[in-house]
Amino acid sequence: MTDTGSTPLDNEADCFHDECGVFGIFGKDDAAAVVTLGLHALQHRGQEAAGIASYTGQQFAVERHVGLIGDTFTKRSIMDRLSGDRAIGHTRYSTTGGEGLRNVQPLFAEFAGGGFAIAHNGNITNALTVQRELQKRGAIFSSTSDTETILHLIAVSEKTHIVPKFIDAIMQLEGAYSLVGLSEKKMIGARDPLGIRPLVLGDLDGAYILASETCALDIIGARFVRDISPGEVVVITEKGVESHFPFEKQPPRLCIFEYVYFARPDSIIEGRNVYEVRKRIGEELAREAPVTADLVIPVPDSGTPAAIGFSQGANIPFELGIIRNHYVGRTFIAPSASIRHMGVKLKHNANRAMIEGKSVVLVDDSIVRGTTSQKIVQMVREAGAREVHMRIASPPTMSSCYYGVDTPEKSKLLASRMTVEQMADFIRVDSLGFLSIDGLYRAVREPSRNAECPQFCDACFTGDYPTALTDQGDQGDVRRLSLLLGNNG
Amino acid sequence: MTDTGSTPLDNEADCFHDECGVFGIFGKDDAAAVVTLGLHALQHRGQEAAGIASYTGQQFAVERHVGLIGDTFTKRSIMDRLSGDRAIGHTRYSTTGGEGLRNVQPLFAEFAGGGFAIAHNGNITNALTVQRELQKRGAIFSSTSDTETILHLIAVSEKTHIVPKFIDAIMQLEGAYSLVGLSEKKMIGARDPLGIRPLVLGDLDGAYILASETCALDIIGARFVRDISPGEVVVITEKGVESHFPFEKQPPRLCIFEYVYFARPDSIIEGRNVYEVRKRIGEELAREAPVTADLVIPVPDSGTPAAIGFSQGANIPFELGIIRNHYVGRTFIAPSASIRHMGVKLKHNANRAMIEGKSVVLVDDSIVRGTTSQKIVQMVREAGAREVHMRIASPPTMSSCYYGVDTPEKSKLLASRMTVEQMADFIRVDSLGFLSIDGLYRAVREPSRNAECPQFCDACFTGDYPTALTDQGDQGDVRRLSLLLGNNG
Amino acid sequence: MTDTGSTPLDNEADCFHDECGVFGIFGKDDAAAVVTLGLHALQHRGQEAAGIASYTGQQFAVERHVGLIGDTFTKRSIMDRLSGDRAIGHTRYSTTGGEGLRNVQPLFAEFAGGGFAIAHNGNITNALTVQRELQKRGAIFSSTSDTETILHLIAVSEKTHIVPKFIDAIMQLEGAYSLVGLSEKKMIGARDPLGIRPLVLGDLDGAYILASETCALDIIGARFVRDISPGEVVVITEKGVESHFPFEKQPPRLCIFEYVYFARPDSIIEGRNVYEVRKRIGEELAREAPVTADLVIPVPDSGTPAAIGFSQGANIPFELGIIRNHYVGRTFIAPSASIRHMGVKLKHNANRAMIEGKSVVLVDDSIVRGTTSQKIVQMVREAGAREVHMRIASPPTMSSCYYGVDTPEKSKLLASRMTVEQMADFIRVDSLGFLSIDGLYRAVREPSRNAECPQFCDACFTGDYPTALTDQGDQGDVRRLSLLLGNNG
Amino acid sequence: MTDTGSTPLDNEADCFHDECGVFGIFGKDDAAAVVTLGLHALQHRGQEAAGIASYTGQQFAVERHVGLIGDTFTKRSIMDRLSGDRAIGHTRYSTTGGEGLRNVQPLFAEFAGGGFAIAHNGNITNALTVQRELQKRGAIFSSTSDTETILHLIAVSEKTHIVPKFIDAIMQLEGAYSLVGLSEKKMIGARDPLGIRPLVLGDLDGAYILASETCALDIIGARFVRDISPGEVVVITEKGVESHFPFEKQPPRLCIFEYVYFARPDSIIEGRNVYEVRKRIGEELAREAPVTADLVIPVPDSGTPAAIGFSQGANIPFELGIIRNHYVGRTFIAPSASIRHMGVKLKHNANRAMIEGKSVVLVDDSIVRGTTSQKIVQMVREAGAREVHMRIASPPTMSSCYYGVDTPEKSKLLASRMTVEQMADFIRVDSLGFLSIDGLYRAVREPSRNAECPQFCDACFTGDYPTALTDQGDQGDVRRLSLLLGNNG
Repeated sequence: MTDTGSTPLDNEADCFHDECGVFGIFGKDDAAAVVTLGLHALQHRGQEAAGIASYTGQQFAVERHVGLIGDTFTKRSIMDRLSGDRAIGHTRYSTTGGEGLRNVQPLFAEFAGGGFAIAHNGNITNALTVQRELQKRGAIFSSTSDTETILHLIAVSEKTHIVPKFIDAIMQLEGAYSLVGLSEKKMIGARDPLGIRPLVLGDLDGAYILASETCALDIIGARFVRDISPGEVVVITEKGVESHFPFEKQPPRLCIFEYVYFARPDSIIEGRNVYEVRKRIGEELAREAPVTADLVIPVPDSGTPAAIGFSQGANIPFELGIIRNHYVGRTFIAPSASIRHMGVKLKHNANRAMIEGKSVVLVDDSIVRGTTSQKIVQMVREAGAREVHMRIASPPTMSSCYYGVDTPEKSKLLASRMTVEQMADFIRVDSLGFLSIDGLYRAVREPSRNAECPQFCDACFTGDYPTALTDQGDQGDVRRLSLLLGNNG
Repeated sequence: MTDTGSTPLDNEADCFHDECGVFGIFGKDDAAAVVTLGLHALQHRGQEAAGIASYTGQQFAVERHVGLIGDTFTKRSIMDRLSGDRAIGHTRYSTTGGEGLRNVQPLFAEFAGGGFAIAHNGNITNALTVQRELQKRGAIFSSTSDTETILHLIAVSEKTHIVPKFIDAIMQLEGAYSLVGLSEKKMIGARDPLGIRPLVLGDLDGAYILASETCALDIIGARFVRDISPGEVVVITEKGVESHFPFEKQPPRLCIFEYVYFARPDSIIEGRNVYEVRKRIGEELAREAPVTADLVIPVPDSGTPAAIGFSQGANIPFELGIIRNHYVGRTFIAPSASIRHMGVKLKHNANRAMIEGKSVVLVDDSIVRGTTSQKIVQMVREAGAREVHMRIASPPTMSSCYYGVDTPEKSKLLASRMTVEQMADFIRVDSLGFLSIDGLYRAVREPSRNAECPQFCDACFTGDYPTALTDQGDQGDVRRLSLLLGNNG
Repeated sequence: MTDTGSTPLDNEADCFHDECGVFGIFGKDDAAAVVTLGLHALQHRGQEAAGIASYTGQQFAVERHVGLIGDTFTKRSIMDRLSGDRAIGHTRYSTTGGEGLRNVQPLFAEFAGGGFAIAHNGNITNALTVQRELQKRGAIFSSTSDTETILHLIAVSEKTHIVPKFIDAIMQLEGAYSLVGLSEKKMIGARDPLGIRPLVLGDLDGAYILASETCALDIIGARFVRDISPGEVVVITEKGVESHFPFEKQPPRLCIFEYVYFARPDSIIEGRNVYEVRKRIGEELAREAPVTADLVIPVPDSGTPAAIGFSQGANIPFELGIIRNHYVGRTFIAPSASIRHMGVKLKHNANRAMIEGKSVVLVDDSIVRGTTSQKIVQMVREAGAREVHMRIASPPTMSSCYYGVDTPEKSKLLASRMTVEQMADFIRVDSLGFLSIDGLYRAVREPSRNAECPQFCDACFTGDYPTALTDQGDQGDVRRLSLLLGNNG
Repeated sequence: MTDTGSTPLDNEADCFHDECGVFGIFGKDDAAAVVTLGLHALQHRGQEAAGIASYTGQQFAVERHVGLIGDTFTKRSIMDRLSGDRAIGHTRYSTTGGEGLRNVQPLFAEFAGGGFAIAHNGNITNALTVQRELQKRGAIFSSTSDTETILHLIAVSEKTHIVPKFIDAIMQLEGAYSLVGLSEKKMIGARDPLGIRPLVLGDLDGAYILASETCALDIIGARFVRDISPGEVVVITEKGVESHFPFEKQPPRLCIFEYVYFARPDSIIEGRNVYEVRKRIGEELAREAPVTADLVIPVPDSGTPAAIGFSQGANIPFELGIIRNHYVGRTFIAPSASIRHMGVKLKHNANRAMIEGKSVVLVDDSIVRGTTSQKIVQMVREAGAREVHMRIASPPTMSSCYYGVDTPEKSKLLASRMTVEQMADFIRVDSLGFLSIDGLYRAVREPSRNAECPQFCDACFTGDYPTALTDQGDQGDVRRLSLLLGNNG
């Protein structure tokens, strides 16, 4: 799975996009500067826009800007406004809608009891339903973000202090969320009861950190303390960390796609190094879908670790047969209509000298619409490959994600409407192999998928959604599921 | 060799930078749009600024802009001005000086006989001397670019047509140049007599292309025709291609560093695929400087092909032990003084899970100042490596380049003032090995370096400059050399 | 009164600023383009930022931008989003606070019953008090604008349709407001019960218009229909105009300063042409504060009509003795510390040729802090004036305005702490004369000020505030006043 | 004459535009900051772009930017680069061509003997001819500015020092020029032999100033020393001012239109205050073209002084019957096609309250194409005027200017193809009167025009060009003229 395309017109991204990364630090001078670095390390989770909120000691400062962190949150004029020793930040993939910045986070509200900023990774599956309810009571929404719904639920809570208000609010949410909030005196972190999105606790010279991934701790040399638990609410104050567990306990369901594609290879999520999981995926794939070939070639860059694993597992040499252009900015559009049909290779080029006359195995992380795979295969064939075999480092993606990942609707997913053989024809490969769902579970060191009570959220592969999807009007299966699980989440 | 640094303050780049890529096309509608794509593929040769000149049929249009090609030469307002079926372009690394755009190319002049645009990769080593001579005669220079000197030499030629004028001009130049020029009716390409910088001829549906590297042909699906020969002047008109050889023939001296670092791995330069050369460099290195270790880790991204070669040659597993952050923009500066001393890892992170307790071989392309190597080694040690061995895919870089590469002055080059042992101490590795100069020649499929008449320019390794360096006041050795070679150099 | 200063450092404006102009049109294709022109004509009421909201037929579009109308709301990309045949707009003086655009209007909210946009000229004197009340109930405010309070009051109204909700809301307001609102099917206009700010109804080929001043009708050739009455709510639909009078009737109190300075000279407010009022002010002033002199010189540009009146009344020649620089942008700051003490004349220059050796009368509209007057007088003296007399086209400004005008706090107003003699000394004139309050009333064709029930709001001259000032904690006098008036306002 | 129009589409300006103002100061710390202020005062001579060159003590710094002085040359980043105690600047009206900044001045060249910057007000009528000559000799031009020709002539002079080189150069020029140049050690000022454009010498605390008009001295409180004489070259060094008179003396021919429109009213040019001349023009006009009317109304803003003079001469009240919108930026374009036909009044509005039922005299400075006059008259008629009389404060403009003023070609000038009666019909006035050429001369205190040897350049009124127009291929008349005048022209 890759965001590339050999034509510059391919404006419907052919990959999944995680929508957010969150980061907060409490108790460190120039906290916002540290948040800048943390968000920089999390930009693979969203590079379109970012925001930081700090409490300066007198008031809250909030800055939100479109663009790369390194181009925005390094300007003196911006950073000077974000003084203080506590700050939270957010980086996001897309800014849909005309007034884009309205949906950039952190969001901030002045409650009767003081200010509160919040940053969110995930997606609330009953946000619209709750929003409509609140509007009937006179609430005014200034964004279309589901995160604003959380703020409103906090605002209308009848509790008097911020932590009980916050808990009141999240108890009414369905879906996936890893949240970081900041009041004048407290930083709050929370994961939904299933722990669908990751969130970790770190420590830098006595200052506590909350971050989506451990790579954001590494960039500043912070110490990894532990994963926040599913359903846990941590409250960080000058006295330290305290934990709350407001939800009934239930088996966790971390998003397994974090291992396949979203997370950075150097991160460690719930004890597993992402790079190692990806290599094991490649090894499993070599076992499950063996092939005789001259070379293993990764589809850059996301297919690389699995390709290395495949190469080692299959004992076929690993080679960079496709070269990536590092200078693709965000805005490359066809400079002229006449070149739209030239089959331009903006992002990649096949290295003919390596490929010509060879039988090659291409390793990619997933297939979404299939159009990108088609073009890559064609490029490799034009470079003279004798045989082209495709191996995919995950099971076929059949269903949309409602938990904070930008996915096409189900009907656009190639695997939802074709068999593996049809897909092989469609992308024109000599053979096509996907990892099995159990193979994927083995790569994360589970014996196999427990169908009664799956250890991960794997809805994009199985259609098995672990929470209600109220805004989708689709609660039946979930209710059943909830019964099985003893609660709904 | 890598442009990274673990502190954001490291504003003196610790690598060599090629300064330019050139591209031209003649006889294709929307020529400038094709140039945009060609320059995009050449941006590894210079990403700071770019320019395109086209002849619209009535007049010349010239646009020069700072920024990535994909952010500038894709705007309709710019491209609409660049109509016509013939256009040339240039991408460059640095824009020094206050009014930066003055030095961005192509340069354009209206001669008595018509307009002429020119783009240049290389460096003229007697440009200042010639410039001073021309100023005494009343010439006015509007930039500090050595390329403007070429324009003036054309202007003062007493020949009547553009090709003889152009040849008159380049006959007076010393140094390295691959040039692409455009008059109303002709596109001209030229390489200096030693062919220090590359230049190739391509063909797209009957339209001729000149480009620094073949990867710029591949992006648009153009056919590679041949390398332009050292000392050759090609003239492209509606009738086709004609060649001139105004210089006395002499043995060629292509820059060998193009294979080590500058060129893109998928390019083919004078018959050799760059990726394959780099892999062979790794294999040679494994032979010349063997080591017992658990893992081979590339310093991303430039060390990767040599690391693959080393891994295959030494039979030690290749692993991505250092993860690169893809989102480093051009302007990341320390957002706050307080974090300058945090040892921030902006560009890379060592993957502790892979490295801890292991003996690792790091493979990098070169060592320039040594500060970056120091930081990378420290990062890998902090991630728990038991032993750290460094292998460098080229000989020690001892001398500055005067042929279009941005290098520190000699005294800043680590290898110019330390032995290999001292360097190993300085960067704190358990062992350090460089490729020998003969090993490098073997990797490009030469039996060894011919000291009497070296097959390449390798001045950065040997101090053996193949041309006069008049502006440096240093002509002694060269004169001797010229005698040996039977020509002016 | 003038916004000038002879030093570029004078960043505390020495004049009053009206804060807003409003404009709406219903039933005309390209409504937003008409609003652009209307706002352009109203820019003397606020030139810093502007916004337009239109209903496109399917949805609401809202655009808000900092800068002159002619630089922002003429861009195709912006105007294309604002399609539809109904639109309202707003132009404002200041954008205080970091995230300036949050306070630019029109504000928009999606209510349970549909969308609603609102633009406001004036100031709600109990907005903070109401806001705190609403926050206690869980409302979230996204701006610091008093206008957002109005939106929240509409949102929490228990009425079911927009007009009753709107009336519900404004019944709870204190202070000054001329409002223009837009729902999918209705445009609403309203003036506060005292009619402190102006609002007129116009007609353009059958489309109804609401505008702050008639000059905004003239720019598009629209017909003036009538002033909206104090306390009136007009509802414009496809069927026409209907009026509501929800408030108990009370004597009107239009801001008299609109005639002195705010309104454009060509506007007609409640039957009086502003230019004619200003000329009569000059004539009254010539009568009340006569002087023997050679020339009458206006302080440009606001003093000009009164100076013409003074000249005609006193039979002293009118001359442009002070020349205005038309090219003063918004951002002129001292380019260097060293010139701050040079007494630079950025905005004006005295015309020595006219002034030297003469006795001159300067006519200005008001004195705020006095610093500008000081500089102007000094400049005129340095140009050689023999005598300098100052005549002010209004009574001394002694009190702050809480009704939508940006005024310094009372203690900064020169007249609040000095007698006229002291002021004459302070600004160093040979004589100083202000218009009397009764003279001002005569200029607007009233026999004199009715102290029991003044015909206008003249609080800046008299301290007699016609409404409660709840947010100022100052309701005593007003309550008394309310009793007198039979209602609270 | 006014640059307005009641439709926003009128993009062919209906007025004359002076193209430049120049300013230099020598011997004052932060010289560039003083130049900024001087250029600010000269912006009526060109507001589109500006540049400043300073000598920092080590090198020359040159900055050129599009936009208002107050928006560009007040930024710290720009001003910091322009250090030093000597600097010159230039402000200009238009930046034609794509790469607009190439033609913004000062231009700078590094000569064999050192750097030199130059700023120019006027136009060289043989520039293209000289340029072609120089190109044949191998000169390269980087702009289309006639000023660059001057630089080249200096460069090719065989003299050894800058002053003789400079004099060499200007001896070869035809046309109009007031020049300010800066070398490391000298500031040079020069006026062409006829003194067509103004240039004055000033003094600020011992530092010498050269400026186009005295208003640029007033803004900084500098002392007026004297006008530079026609044909004079002044050289300012640390030792003081020295004068050269390289040309044969001839009768001066200052542009008389400077008094009519270009210069600022508070400037004094060759002993005459511009405002006073304009008032006398109005008085002459009242005498030459009397009319019975109720009001005299200036067409703002340029017609105002003449209207005051007319009012006093004719004893008819002066009134602001047309109100100007102060907020017209540079870029107001029709926001929508549908409003182009609405007769929008972007820049002015007639004040109906003053005009209705009255007989009015409109006073404007000139008529160029006539389209603006047409619209203004229509606007005044629609406001109810009973009779509309137009009086023009200059003779009919019949011929183009080649001396640095942007004028339409002759055939577009209304007066070149219509009688006064036809023009009156065309603009639909009850009567139309122009000032006679002798009346204009009387207003500048000459008894009448001396036809044999006119005291001013009045070519736009008379077609009598005082210099050769070599680039126009039109030297016949001028040669004759030159014979008459006994010099080169």
